Amino acid sequence: MIFILHSFLIVWINRVFLYLNKGPLSGMKINGVHYQTIWEKESDPGMIQILDQRLLPFELKIADLRDPEQYAFAIREMQVRGAPLIGVTAAYGMYAATLQIAGKRDPEKFLGEIAGMLKNTRPTAVDLFYAVDLCLNSILQKSSPDERVDTALSMARKLKAESIESCRKIGEHGLELIRNLKEKKDGPVNILTHCNAGWLACIDYGTATAPVYLAFDQGIPVHVWVDETRPRNQGAKLTAYELSEHGVPHTVIPDNAGGHLMQHGQVDLVIVGTDRTTRAGDVANKIGTYLKALAARDNQVPFYVALPSSSIDWSIRDGIRDIRIETRDEKEVTHMEGWDGEKITEIRVTPFKSQALNHGFDVTPANLVTGLITEKGICEASERGLTALFRDKISSR
Amino acid sequence: MIFILHSFLIVWINRVFLYLNKGPLSGMKINGVHYQTIWEKESDPGMIQILDQRLLPFELKIADLRDPEQYAFAIREMQVRGAPLIGVTAAYGMYAATLQIAGKRDPEKFLGEIAGMLKNTRPTAVDLFYAVDLCLNSILQKSSPDERVDTALSMARKLKAESIESCRKIGEHGLELIRNLKEKKDGPVNILTHCNAGWLACIDYGTATAPVYLAFDQGIPVHVWVDETRPRNQGAKLTAYELSEHGVPHTVIPDNAGGHLMQHGQVDLVIVGTDRTTRAGDVANKIGTYLKALAARDNQVPFYVALPSSSIDWSIRDGIRDIRIETRDEKEVTHMEGWDGEKITEIRVTPFKSQALNHGFDVTPANLVTGLITEKGICEASERGLTALFRDKISSR
Repeated sequence: MIFILHSFLIVWINRVFLYLNKGPLSGMKINGVHYQTIWEKESDPGMIQILDQRLLPFELKIADLRDPEQYAFAIREMQVRGAPLIGVTAAYGMYAATLQIAGKRDPEKFLGEIAGMLKNTRPTAVDLFYAVDLCLNSILQKSSPDERVDTALSMARKLKAESIESCRKIGEHGLELIRNLKEKKDGPVNILTHCNAGWLACIDYGTATAPVYLAFDQGIPVHVWVDETRPRNQGAKLTAYELSEHGVPHTVIPDNAGGHLMQHGQVDLVIVGTDRTTRAGDVANKIGTYLKALAARDNQVPFYVALPSSSIDWSIRDGIRDIRIETRDEKEVTHMEGWDGEKITEIRVTPFKSQALNHGFDVTPANLVTGLITEKGICEASERGLTALFRDKISSR
Repeated sequence: MIFILHSFLIVWINRVFLYLNKGPLSGMKINGVHYQTIWEKESDPGMIQILDQRLLPFELKIADLRDPEQYAFAIREMQVRGAPLIGVTAAYGMYAATLQIAGKRDPEKFLGEIAGMLKNTRPTAVDLFYAVDLCLNSILQKSSPDERVDTALSMARKLKAESIESCRKIGEHGLELIRNLKEKKDGPVNILTHCNAGWLACIDYGTATAPVYLAFDQGIPVHVWVDETRPRNQGAKLTAYELSEHGVPHTVIPDNAGGHLMQHGQVDLVIVGTDRTTRAGDVANKIGTYLKALAARDNQVPFYVALPSSSIDWSIRDGIRDIRIETRDEKEVTHMEGWDGEKITEIRVTPFKSQALNHGFDVTPANLVTGLITEKGICEASERGLTALFRDKISSR
C-alpha cells in the first residue's frame, strides 16, 4: 500500500516538474522540445506513441501503438530497444490487451497469449519477461474488464515512472563524480562512453548518460567521447544523436581510438551501461567494453558502470564463465546502414566471399571496474559492495 | 658491388621461381592467378601496372602508369598504399621521369621537380622520401639519358626485389611461431590481425600476413580473425580480400571483438604490422592496435609485430611521447563506403550535427609486445633485442 502511494507520488511529482519544464527534471530534448521514448497520446486514450528508433539519427518519426501486435512488432523489429524501454513498452502492450478483452469468450486465455507473444519478441531480455509477468499477474487478480484496464494502465505508468526515477537517481549519484573531477581541472570534463545507455534506451535521462545530462544542465562543462560501437553503431547513431539534440558537446570516435586518447590524458572518466551484472560485480555490456576497461586501467582512468539494480543477476558470480553471449546475425558486420544523401541505404563493407562473426556482448571482470553507479548510490564492483547496498533485494530473492 | 650482385641474384632467383610458379615463392593469388601489387607490363616497355586498391574488394581493376603525374596521383589518391608499396611505386615514378628527360633543357631541374612532386603526395611516409632520394641520387650520378634510364629502372627493380625478399624472410621466421603453436593444439592455429599489413601493402606476401601465407601454403591449418579496422576498414576490405582470394580460412570481426575472443581461448597468436618502430621497441600501428595488445597481455596471448627493419626509427625511444600521430579527415569516421548492390556508394553513419575525430595510429609500448619479427629473425621488443639483431644498421646511421 505504501509502495503504491509512493509510486503515485513519484508520477505526480514528475508531472508537476514536466509541466514546469525546468530544473534537473526537465528531461531530454530533441530540437528544443522535451521528449520521452514512450508516452500516452493525450487526445486519444488507448493510443501510445513511441519514437521509431530504426530511423535515427536521420529521420525523427513517431509511431502509433494500439493493437498488441503493434507492440510485439515494435519490440521485435527494434523500433524500441534498451532493456528499460522494452520492459515499459511490453507493459503498455499488456494494457492494450486489456482494452480488447471485453466480449472475449476466454479473456484469461487471450491475455496469456498476448503475454506469450510479447515475451517471444526478444528471447534474452530479462526486463521484458519481468514486466510482462508482473503485469499479467496483476491483471489476472482483477475480474472485471474495467478493473483490468485500470490495473494494466497504472502498472505500465508505475514501471515507466520507476524507470525515470531510477535513471534520475543514477544521474544524481554519478554527477558527484563529474563535479569532483571538474574541481581538479580546467576545461571540460572528458567522459568516454560506449554504445547507447542513454535516454533512448530508457524513458528519460538514460543510465550511463544521466550523470552527463545532469552535469550539463547544471552548467558543469562536459565533453563526451562517443564510441561509434560497431557493428550496430548505437554510439554513432543514438548516443551522438541524443547528445547533439540536447546540446551536449561531444565527438564521435572509432571504437579503436579510446586507448590512444587515454594514453594522452584526454579521458577523465569512462561511464558505460550494462545489460547484466553479476553479484560479484562482473559486467556484461556491448562488445568492446572490456577493451576500454583494460585501457582505462592501464592509464589510471576511472571506469564506472551505471545500472538500475534490476540488471543485477544475483544468481551468478563469474560473468566470463556463466553469462552466455548472444551471437547475432553476421550481416550486422558485413553490412552497414546510413544516409546516402536521399534515404537510408544499406551497403556491404566486406568481400563477397568472406564470412563474419558477431558477438553482441563481452564481459568486463569486476577488477577492472572502479565502481558501480546505481539508483541507491555508488558502490565497489564486488559482492561486498553490492550486498551492502542491496541487502533487501538479496534477502527477498 | 657485392650488394648489387646480391640484389640481381635475388631478382633472378625470384624470376625463376615465379616462372615455375610453385613452392613457398609462388606468391599471392587472386582468383587462382599470381599477382603482385606493381609490375612492368612485358609487352609495353615503360608501362607499369598496379592494382587500383580503391575499388577493392568489390572490383579488381588494373591501372596503367606512364607519366610521372600518374604515379603521383596513384600515391596521393591511394590507388596504392602501404609504406613498402608506396616506396617502390615512387621509385618507378622516378624511372618514368628519366624516360622523359631526352631533349629537356635542364634535365637535372626536371628530375628534381618530379622528385619533389612524388615526395609531396603523402607527407608522412618515410619510405617514400627514402626511395625517391635514393633514386634521384643514383640517377644524378649518371650523365647520359640512357644511363639514367637504366639506373632508374634497376634501382626500382632492386627496391622491389628487396621488399619481396624482406617479406619472405619475415614469413619464414614467423612461420616457426605458427608451427610451434600447431604442435601444442588440435585444430587450426587462430591468428588475429589488425588493419592490412598484407601483400596489398607490400609487393608480395605482406609483413604480418607473410607467416600466415607460408604456413597455409605448407599445409599447416590456420584461421585468421580479421579486425574490420575502422575507420578506413582496411581489415574488412583488404586483408579479408587477400585471404579470401588466396584461400586462407578467415572471419571478419568488429574491432570490438578481439578481447572477448581472447577471454574464451579463441586466439592463439596476434600478428600485426607497424608503420614506425622506435629503437626501444615501441610500435606505432593503425589505431586500435594498442587495445588488442592490452587484451593479449590480459589473456596471455602472444602478441608479435612483423616489420621490415626499414620501419625502425633509430632516432627515438619513447613512442608515446615522440611519435606524432596523424589526424586524418573526420569524414573517414562520419561516412563509410561499400557496395550498394550495383556500385560503390558512400553513406553517412553519424548524425548530421555531430563532429568526429580521426587519429590514424596509436602506439603500443614495447612491454606489451612479445616479440618483433624482422627479416633478420625474431627479437625481443627492446633496445637490447633490436641492437643485437641490427648492429650494422646502428653504426652506419
